[in-house]
Amino acid sequence: MNTLDLFSSNDTICAISTPQGRGGIAVIRVSGPQALDIVQSRWQGKPLANMESHTVHLGQLTDSNGDLLDQALLTVYRAPNSFTGEDVVELACHGSTWIQQQAIQTLIDAGCRHATAGEFTRRAFANGRMDLSQAEAVADVIEAQSRAAHHVAMSQMRGRYSEELKGLRDKLLHFVALIELELDFSEEDVTFADRSEVTALAHDIHDLIGRLADSYRDGNAIKDGMPVAIVGQTNAGKSTLLNALLRDDRALVSDVHGTTRDTIEDTVMMGGTLYRFIDTAGIRQSTDTVEQMGIERTWQAMDKAKVVLWVVDVTSADTSMAHDILSHCHGKALIVVLNKTDLDDELAAKSELNEVLPEGTTVVAISAKCDSDIEALRALIVEAATLPEVDSNAVIVTNARHYQALTHARDAIARAIDGLNGGLSGDLLDQDIRECLHWLGEITGEVTTDNILGEIFAHFCVGK
Amino acid sequence: MNTLDLFSSNDTICAISTPQGRGGIAVIRVSGPQALDIVQSRWQGKPLANMESHTVHLGQLTDSNGDLLDQALLTVYRAPNSFTGEDVVELACHGSTWIQQQAIQTLIDAGCRHATAGEFTRRAFANGRMDLSQAEAVADVIEAQSRAAHHVAMSQMRGRYSEELKGLRDKLLHFVALIELELDFSEEDVTFADRSEVTALAHDIHDLIGRLADSYRDGNAIKDGMPVAIVGQTNAGKSTLLNALLRDDRALVSDVHGTTRDTIEDTVMMGGTLYRFIDTAGIRQSTDTVEQMGIERTWQAMDKAKVVLWVVDVTSADTSMAHDILSHCHGKALIVVLNKTDLDDELAAKSELNEVLPEGTTVVAISAKCDSDIEALRALIVEAATLPEVDSNAVIVTNARHYQALTHARDAIARAIDGLNGGLSGDLLDQDIRECLHWLGEITGEVTTDNILGEIFAHFCVGK
Repeated sequence: MNTLDLFSSNDTICAISTPQGRGGIAVIRVSGPQALDIVQSRWQGKPLANMESHTVHLGQLTDSNGDLLDQALLTVYRAPNSFTGEDVVELACHGSTWIQQQAIQTLIDAGCRHATAGEFTRRAFANGRMDLSQAEAVADVIEAQSRAAHHVAMSQMRGRYSEELKGLRDKLLHFVALIELELDFSEEDVTFADRSEVTALAHDIHDLIGRLADSYRDGNAIKDGMPVAIVGQTNAGKSTLLNALLRDDRALVSDVHGTTRDTIEDTVMMGGTLYRFIDTAGIRQSTDTVEQMGIERTWQAMDKAKVVLWVVDVTSADTSMAHDILSHCHGKALIVVLNKTDLDDELAAKSELNEVLPEGTTVVAISAKCDSDIEALRALIVEAATLPEVDSNAVIVTNARHYQALTHARDAIARAIDGLNGGLSGDLLDQDIRECLHWLGEITGEVTTDNILGEIFAHFCVGK
Repeated sequence: MNTLDLFSSNDTICAISTPQGRGGIAVIRVSGPQALDIVQSRWQGKPLANMESHTVHLGQLTDSNGDLLDQALLTVYRAPNSFTGEDVVELACHGSTWIQQQAIQTLIDAGCRHATAGEFTRRAFANGRMDLSQAEAVADVIEAQSRAAHHVAMSQMRGRYSEELKGLRDKLLHFVALIELELDFSEEDVTFADRSEVTALAHDIHDLIGRLADSYRDGNAIKDGMPVAIVGQTNAGKSTLLNALLRDDRALVSDVHGTTRDTIEDTVMMGGTLYRFIDTAGIRQSTDTVEQMGIERTWQAMDKAKVVLWVVDVTSADTSMAHDILSHCHGKALIVVLNKTDLDDELAAKSELNEVLPEGTTVVAISAKCDSDIEALRALIVEAATLPEVDSNAVIVTNARHYQALTHARDAIARAIDGLNGGLSGDLLDQDIRECLHWLGEITGEVTTDNILGEIFAHFCVGK
């Protein structure tokens, strides 16, 4: 948790901004009021004071003893025309790990503080270079693994989402103005716009907030991967199937951070969309409490999924849990996967399933163990659920914090609409609208706390 | 192996120059005659043609469809004032792996070729921005893990070594001039400088080359780590000791590339010096051919080491191989390590050893398994062999290729000295001197082949 005060920008911070490890070059970023002076004390070359903003100069970086550390390229960005809005110096050094360590050391010795995670972006926010939703998008841009995730994050970083929120805010302020006009004149018998104009505006606001909040379902799938639950009875071969699905794309597979320990999740890119496969506990009738808890989590995983793969063992096609599984599949694409065709053919299992499956259910026979027909299954998954094409201007909510704030804002405006319908007095309506404004302000950072900021920037990498 | 022709710089190359992976920012370097035009075709912002060299500009990088890829900072370096001597454009993008991949893709689509390993530096060499020994030092600077290795590589990159070689070359050319003067006037009975001046010069050159060649022993230890052989009988606990020595510094430990598979090597930094520990096959009297080969390699490892750790099991202090081990320790620091003090005390083993060890031999009792007294052993190793302090101006040969060339050059000048002593004719002396010049020219790259260049630059990282 970042415990720094939001506006403690009196000191000058430094960090390596390029990826960790050895490479051709590494970039060290220094930001703060003393950036030029501190770097000057470790620099042999043209004096920094004489450098124009946005110019690059070759020179020599020295250690605390004045010994040469590296020949480096130095770029000066003068406040406020820099990423952070402060004076910024960037040093492009040779990318040896030794030079990187020593360069940071010499800058700290000269008076810099090592930056905390996301602190450069935090300063950009504090200095009004971007609002909070844009700052959050910087991390999303860096994390993005697919075209869609990239486009949504870029759109947010460039302020399209902020504009949308600003439009909402303007509407809400107009709403407030209308209500207050009514309050001001309430004791006079003046005829002015009746409540129908106010009500229409409230509905308009409600719809806009609702559309943003609803986009979160797609947004979450875009950012974290389209959720695909793998369910079925114990020993049906669910984990083997997960491995088979992931195997060919191992290079593109990554662990999803912060996933619960009791379901195994992994993401894989297929047809340009990121899918997040969730391997669940085996389902069976059980009186064991622990096992029941595992099964409960399986139902929860299914509820979040867009696609459900129901894995059935062809050698023991057991359809006793069919009713329970099908009852959790409403609104989702269901694919029944007949597994272990290396041990038996799928005919008997198919006829068993025909008894219980709704007509038209997709059924595919595979052998996860022999990696047979996995490609056909992949194609079915891609066909069952693909994200809509999004461009760099799309406004889609991808952030749980925003979704929560939007939900609160929607509740507040819904209360205002109820109030309007019920003839609630203007000052009480005013309260709901101000609450709605508050929640939108939390997204853009106009209303915020150090705790929220600490939470947000702790997820950044150091150096950004 | 790089099969490109040395001077095929007609095309424009691109690569990611920062370390692999995700980070705050990533830098993509583009170099070649079309660098500005190609990047321009993917750039929205100020036209590149209007940018001055060494200036930075914010703009937008687009993909082949004109869709936004990233907001990026673009720096222009105009030929010949760039690293490669060509027009260079550097793009600082957000460090997402997706953006990095796509940015390279869009540049390739626009006409760039992806750079091979070290190709930017190779172009810098081809365009006369640096000689070959300086180019090689660029890779050494990036690989350097210790202050000493860094200083030696920096010195070489900055041309101190090249100056030394240039001085040698000047002396050799003076030698040639003196010899040729003698040839020109040989049929006239002119009195001029007798051969003593020539002989003194030859000795001077021989000494200078010899000093450089001799510096290689230290240079190799500086670059690859001070070699420490761990020897002893089977089951004395050599591998456990290696692990114990490495354990506390795991973060600083790296595999040494290209080491032989039959000895295990690992490096660790202790007291600012890099040590390379070599775990060898156990030594015992054997008639088994394969085992004898392993033991032969142990002797070879000992020959290369500066420090030998002879590990003796206190529970079965066997000194039967003492003579063989001691006979391979001449000129090295020997430390006898009594291991397994967790099983037995070291008194019996010590008195056994007293029978066979030369007086004053360092003996230390430890338990590798229990990690006991390892710190004392480390201190003894550091005390036994530490590299001399080197500064950034030190000229020390660290490169096997250079060492080989210097050895050939020394042989050639030695033949010339023999010739002078034996009254050899000037034209034959001339031949030796020209051979000497040839070998020095191989170091700086005046004389070279594509094979040598391919070999050298294949060891670079891509993007440098």
